[in-house]
Amino acid sequence: MSFSALLVRLTDIHNLEQAGAVLDWDQRTYMPAKGSEARSKQLATLAKISHEMFVAKETADLLAAAEAEGKSFGEDSDERAMLRVVRRNFDRETRVPTELVVALAETTSRGQDVWAEARAKNDFQMFAPWLQKIIELKRQYAAAIAPGLPVYDALLDLFEEGMTTRVLDPIFAALKAHGVPLVGAIQQRGKKISDEILTRNYDPKAQEKFCHYILKECGFSFERGRLDTSVHPFCTNFSQNDVRITTRWETDWLPGALFGCLHEMGHSFYELDIDPKYEASPLAGGVSLGIHESQSRLWENLVGRSREFWEKYYPELQSAFPAQLGGEPLDAFYEAINRVTPSLIRVEADEVTYNLHIILRYEMEQALLSGAVAVMDAPAAWNEKMKASFGIVPPTDKEGILQDVHWSAGLFGYFPTYSLGNILSSQLFAVAMKELPNLRGEVRKGSFGGLLEWLRTHVHQYGRKYKPADLVKKATGQPLSTEAYLKYLTEKFTRIYGL
Amino acid sequence: MSFSALLVRLTDIHNLEQAGAVLDWDQRTYMPAKGSEARSKQLATLAKISHEMFVAKETADLLAAAEAEGKSFGEDSDERAMLRVVRRNFDRETRVPTELVVALAETTSRGQDVWAEARAKNDFQMFAPWLQKIIELKRQYAAAIAPGLPVYDALLDLFEEGMTTRVLDPIFAALKAHGVPLVGAIQQRGKKISDEILTRNYDPKAQEKFCHYILKECGFSFERGRLDTSVHPFCTNFSQNDVRITTRWETDWLPGALFGCLHEMGHSFYELDIDPKYEASPLAGGVSLGIHESQSRLWENLVGRSREFWEKYYPELQSAFPAQLGGEPLDAFYEAINRVTPSLIRVEADEVTYNLHIILRYEMEQALLSGAVAVMDAPAAWNEKMKASFGIVPPTDKEGILQDVHWSAGLFGYFPTYSLGNILSSQLFAVAMKELPNLRGEVRKGSFGGLLEWLRTHVHQYGRKYKPADLVKKATGQPLSTEAYLKYLTEKFTRIYGL
Repeated sequence: MSFSALLVRLTDIHNLEQAGAVLDWDQRTYMPAKGSEARSKQLATLAKISHEMFVAKETADLLAAAEAEGKSFGEDSDERAMLRVVRRNFDRETRVPTELVVALAETTSRGQDVWAEARAKNDFQMFAPWLQKIIELKRQYAAAIAPGLPVYDALLDLFEEGMTTRVLDPIFAALKAHGVPLVGAIQQRGKKISDEILTRNYDPKAQEKFCHYILKECGFSFERGRLDTSVHPFCTNFSQNDVRITTRWETDWLPGALFGCLHEMGHSFYELDIDPKYEASPLAGGVSLGIHESQSRLWENLVGRSREFWEKYYPELQSAFPAQLGGEPLDAFYEAINRVTPSLIRVEADEVTYNLHIILRYEMEQALLSGAVAVMDAPAAWNEKMKASFGIVPPTDKEGILQDVHWSAGLFGYFPTYSLGNILSSQLFAVAMKELPNLRGEVRKGSFGGLLEWLRTHVHQYGRKYKPADLVKKATGQPLSTEAYLKYLTEKFTRIYGL
Repeated sequence: MSFSALLVRLTDIHNLEQAGAVLDWDQRTYMPAKGSEARSKQLATLAKISHEMFVAKETADLLAAAEAEGKSFGEDSDERAMLRVVRRNFDRETRVPTELVVALAETTSRGQDVWAEARAKNDFQMFAPWLQKIIELKRQYAAAIAPGLPVYDALLDLFEEGMTTRVLDPIFAALKAHGVPLVGAIQQRGKKISDEILTRNYDPKAQEKFCHYILKECGFSFERGRLDTSVHPFCTNFSQNDVRITTRWETDWLPGALFGCLHEMGHSFYELDIDPKYEASPLAGGVSLGIHESQSRLWENLVGRSREFWEKYYPELQSAFPAQLGGEPLDAFYEAINRVTPSLIRVEADEVTYNLHIILRYEMEQALLSGAVAVMDAPAAWNEKMKASFGIVPPTDKEGILQDVHWSAGLFGYFPTYSLGNILSSQLFAVAMKELPNLRGEVRKGSFGGLLEWLRTHVHQYGRKYKPADLVKKATGQPLSTEAYLKYLTEKFTRIYGL
C-alpha cells in the first residue's frame, strides 16, 4: 500500500523529468535561436518542482513506510531494489543544502558560458576564477553527500555507484602501462596509414541515408526512435519506446557521423531493451555511465570498427559514395578508420590513445580537488602530462586544458566512466563470443540478433536493479577486469600495424 | 508584495503548461509511433500538477491578498487586468468538481478514439452513446462554471469571453441572409471556374521551399519560429520567441499547404507580437479564439487570396512550378483559389460557403444541448440543414455529421469562433486600409511591414489585457459588425463571377 503510493508519487516526478528531457532534446535539435531564454526558465521550473516533490516530507514518509513494508519482499525482489535506489537518491538530495544546490547551478550555468568564451579566445585566465569556484563548491558538495568518503570517491559515485580510486588506480595504471608502449611500438614500426580517404567530400544527405540504413540493419527501430541532427551528438529517451539519437554531419570527415551514429545507437539499445515492467519506475534507465558507455563503445568499436562488419557493409558504403570510395580496397578503409596517432584532442582520439587522455584528466581532477595542483598552475601541469603520455605539447590552452566542457559544468569524476566503458565493452564482448561461438561470422553476415539478445539478457533488461559492479559480475562471471580489453587492443593493432 | 508572489507562482504554472505544449508539439510532429502511450501519461502528469498548483489554497490566499493590494493600481493598469484574468480562471477551475473534470477528460479522450473509428467505418451509431454522454457532461460542466447562464452561453464564454447567443444570433442571421442568396447568384450566373490547375503534381519539397520563401517575405522570423510537418496543421508557441507552425504537404492539392501556411502564420504573428513585458504572465497569449482566428483569416484570405498578393508572387510560384503553372495566366490561378462551390466538408469550403457550415453547427449544438434534437435524430437533422443551406445532402454520415473531431473532444461552443474570426478579419482590414491608404499597393509590392505594425499596435501587443469585445472596439472604434465582411464578400465575388 505505502509502496504503491510511493511509486505513484515517484512516477509523477519521473514524468516531470522526462518532460524536461523532451525540452532539452528540442533545445538541442529544432528550437529556433531566440527560444533559449524562455526555455532555460521552463527547464528550471520543471527541475525545481520535481526536486521539491522528491525531497518533500510526503516522500520521506511514504519512503519510510514503504521500507517497513519492504522487509516482506525477497532479497532479490524488484521492490527491494527500488527502495535501495530511491533511498540512495533521497538521502543524497536531502543532504545538500539548498544554497549549495543553487550556487552550483548558477556557477556551472554561467561557468559553461565563460568556458566557451575563454576557449574561443584561448584565454585560460578568464576561466580560472570560475574553475576555482566550481572546485570549491564540488568539495563542499562531496562533503555534504558523503561525509565519510574522500572527495573524489564521493564524486565518482555520482556517475558510477560504488566506484572508488582504490578500484580505479590499478586499472588506470594497467591501461597506462599497456598503452604507452603500444603507442611507442606503433610509432617505431613506422607503417604509414593515411586517413585521407575519409576526408573526401561526403555529401551529408548521402551520409544520412547510409546511417539510416546501417541503423536499421543493426536493429534500431524507427517506430521506437529517431535520428536527428545536433551540434554535439547525444542519446536521450523519454520512455522505453521513444529513444532519440543525434549526430552531426561533416562533409570532410566521414567517421564523425558514421561512428557517432553507431555509438549513440549502442546507448539507445540499452534504453530500448530494459524490461518493460520497469517503465517510469525507479529502476527505469541504464544503471551507470560506465555501463552505458560499454554499450556505445561495443557497437562503435567492437562491432563498428571491426573488419567483419565492413566485409559486409563496405560494398554498400562504396555504392553510397562511388566517387570517394569506389576505387579504394576494403583494407585501405579498415586501416584508415583504425589509424593510431597521438593527438591533442580527446574526442578525435583512436582506440589506443583514447584512454591516455582519460587518465590525464583523472590525475588532473584529483590534483585540483586535493589542491596538489593550484588552478593557476593547471595549464602547465596539463602540458607536462601531455608531453609524458603523448610526446606532444598543445601549442595553446584551447587545444589543451580548455578543450573539454565538463569541468565548467561541474562534472568532476565523470571522465573515468569513458574508460570504464571501453574496458567493459571488451569484457562483455569476450563473454558473448564464448557463448555465441559464431558471433564474428554473424557480424560478417550483418546478423546482429544474437548479440542484441545476449546483451538484452545479460545487461539491458535489468535497468537499475543491480549496482554496476554486481551487474558486471552477473553478466561476465567476473569483476571488472582489463584483461579482455588489453588483449583486444594488442591483437587488433598488432595485426593492423604488423608489430 | 502579494502581487509579485502570486506572479511567481503563476509563472511556474505557466512554465509547466508551456512544457506540455512542447510535448504536444513533439507528439504531433516528430515523435516515433510507439512513443504515444508514455507521452499521454507525461502530459497527464503535467496537467495534473499545474492544475493542483493553480487551485491550491496557496493560490487562493495569494490571489485574495493581491486583490486587496490591487485596488491601489489604476483602472487600466496591467496589474488590474492580470487580477481580473486570474480571478476568472481561478473561479472557473475551482467550481468544477474533480470527478467531473476526470469524467470529462476520460470520456473525451476515449470519445475521440471512438469518433475516429466511427468515422472510418461510417457508423454513427457507434459514436452516438459517447456523444450522448459528452453532451450530458457538458451540461453539468456549464451549470458548474456559470450557474446563472444558459448552457450554451457558458460554453461560448470558454473560448470567447463575454460572447452570448444574444450577440451571435443576429450576426449569424445576417451571414445566412447574405450567404445563401450569394451562393445562389453565383450558381445561377453559371460561370465555370475550374480548380484543376491546383491539382497537378506538386512536389512537396518544392512546395516547402516556396512556403519558406513566402513566410520570410511576409515577415516570419525563423530565428523565432519554425515550420514543420504534421497531419493536422496547427500553430503553437512555447514563449514569445518560439512559435511553431505546421502544415501538411499534398501532392495533388496546392492550396492545402500554401494557404495553410499563411493561416498559421497569421496566428503566429499574434503570439510573436505581444508586448514582451507580458511574457510568461497571465496576460501572455492571444485573448480569444475569435480574435486569434481573425489574424489567421486576415493573412490567409484578405492578404493571401487577394489579387494584389499574387500580382507580386504568382511569377515566383510559376518559377517554382514551371511545368504546372508556367502556361497559366494569373487570373486562372486567382479564380481557381477563389472558386465558390457548395461542398460537404467544412475544412475544404470557400470563403462564401464556409460560414454556412459554421451556422449549421451552431444550430445543431444548441439543439443537442437543449434536447430539442435527440442524439439519435442528429444525423437526419444535419442532413436536412445541409439540404436547406447548400442544396446537397451528404451521401454518408462520414461526409456529414461525423466529419469534425470537435464534439468528440467536448468542444461545444468552439465553432462560432471560426466565423467570428472571418467577420473580424474584414472589420480590422477595413480600418487598416483607411489608416494605411496605400495598403493594397504595399501588398502588391510584397511590403507587409505597415500592416504588421498596424496589427501589432491595435491588436497584438495587448495580449489578454482587454476582453475580446473591448479589444474590437479599441482597435476598430466600433463593436463587432458584419458590415465590412459582407461588403468584402459581395465585392470580391461579384467581381470574380461577374454578377
